Amino acid sequence: MNALPHSRPRSRGGAPTAPDRLLSVLAAFDHEHPALCLTDISRRAGLSLTTAHRLVAALTEWGALERDESGVYHVGLRLWEVAALAPRGLALRQVALPYLEDLYEATHENVQLAVRDGDEVVYIEWLSGRSAVGVHIRVGARWPLHATGVGLALLAHGDPEFQQAYCAAPLASFTPYTITDPSRLRRVLAEVRRVGAAVSDRQVTDDALSVAAPVRGQDGTVAAAVSVVVPHADACVPTLVPAVRLAARGISRALGWRPDGGVRPGGRSASAH
Amino acid sequence: MNALPHSRPRSRGGAPTAPDRLLSVLAAFDHEHPALCLTDISRRAGLSLTTAHRLVAALTEWGALERDESGVYHVGLRLWEVAALAPRGLALRQVALPYLEDLYEATHENVQLAVRDGDEVVYIEWLSGRSAVGVHIRVGARWPLHATGVGLALLAHGDPEFQQAYCAAPLASFTPYTITDPSRLRRVLAEVRRVGAAVSDRQVTDDALSVAAPVRGQDGTVAAAVSVVVPHADACVPTLVPAVRLAARGISRALGWRPDGGVRPGGRSASAH
Repeated sequence: MNALPHSRPRSRGGAPTAPDRLLSVLAAFDHEHPALCLTDISRRAGLSLTTAHRLVAALTEWGALERDESGVYHVGLRLWEVAALAPRGLALRQVALPYLEDLYEATHENVQLAVRDGDEVVYIEWLSGRSAVGVHIRVGARWPLHATGVGLALLAHGDPEFQQAYCAAPLASFTPYTITDPSRLRRVLAEVRRVGAAVSDRQVTDDALSVAAPVRGQDGTVAAAVSVVVPHADACVPTLVPAVRLAARGISRALGWRPDGGVRPGGRSASAH
Repeated sequence: MNALPHSRPRSRGGAPTAPDRLLSVLAAFDHEHPALCLTDISRRAGLSLTTAHRLVAALTEWGALERDESGVYHVGLRLWEVAALAPRGLALRQVALPYLEDLYEATHENVQLAVRDGDEVVYIEWLSGRSAVGVHIRVGARWPLHATGVGLALLAHGDPEFQQAYCAAPLASFTPYTITDPSRLRRVLAEVRRVGAAVSDRQVTDDALSVAAPVRGQDGTVAAAVSVVVPHADACVPTLVPAVRLAARGISRALGWRPDGGVRPGGRSASAH
């Protein structure tokens, strides 16, 4: 899990293997490219048109891709059904959703659930009212750990070696407020552990602030983080911290975590869904 | 889309192809088997241990599977990220969620969103309060069209030829109340079209009733269905029908549908996410 997701090699040195080629077809789809024609898939996957055609046909037959009337391919329902079993994806979200809804009801602000994948956070859930102010984050989006509230909460509770390596690497900047100084980041992480919550103030965009808290799994390790994103100008951090921490503890309990370290028999495990 | 999902051939006559083998590893995971060791995967996918090991390694490297400390494999976060692009999966759900939340707030009953895949409904979203009475349906679950409210709403608005073929095939029975008579099913479907809502009364379990309404996409065709499931004993159908229809129309509008057949410029298309 500590590998950088974008640094995963597609093949081990030599020519791409058959699994690599098939997975490169799936990887051709992303948020900027959710609908592709065969030529696009072939180009983006680095495959000949003949190979792309054969693999797309197999994926479509299985239901991993769907072809619409205009001949354009989309990600298919069957892939979604299999992916719904991911314990760190929909399964976690299913356990967390009632608590996220309560947090949304209590604050009427954007509410998010995220997990760590390598050096990034991945947003698993994102609730906002129909008329809520838009935040440029969607389900499945990724951000570096140090820039977001959920990322700081996850990083602060990661392995000490991982934290050290992260702080030592270059820290990308998005606004003048993004933390880019390693020693400042270390102080912020210590503060996150002390208070039990993380605040990211205008680090991603210069008008938003997020407050996040860690979610613990059955074994007590931090498995996810929950946050509320509010306009910086209206933010009342002291009011938001208890609400976010309560939601995070609720989800942790639903995952089987106990504050005294005990495990409730039959605690709902995300992976048991 | 009209093919039966379970009748999809894994290979075209001869030996399984390389894509077939890789996809059979993913297909080894389902709701009853969300966590598998290598031996289980090999057995369920019908592959030798050597082949299974090679394919599982490739899928794990890419992030489609994740291996936990005990050596057990789960569906991975990266597959979930790709699957989040499915226009009939998470993307549709993302557009619909605020309206489903409103429906839940208004009724405090189980709220569901489903699409049709072949002869079945697939549940895309399912909201219930933390303390709501359990319904044995989860995200990703499948049911035959004629037994559920959402299925009746989807079937009633399917192609006439598809409806005819469906009614002519044997109709599975789950309770004494399940519609198994083709001519009764045809009358029910006509009624669904007339009223704009479908009622499934104790057809899946003998204590639950669901009320469903069709969701239309930008081109006016029925793309999904939304429903509320309540205990049969307390059900007040006349009160539920308008609430469910309103939610369905709200989602349809958010998808770009207009009652007069016009299309709003810039209507949010599920596939544009």
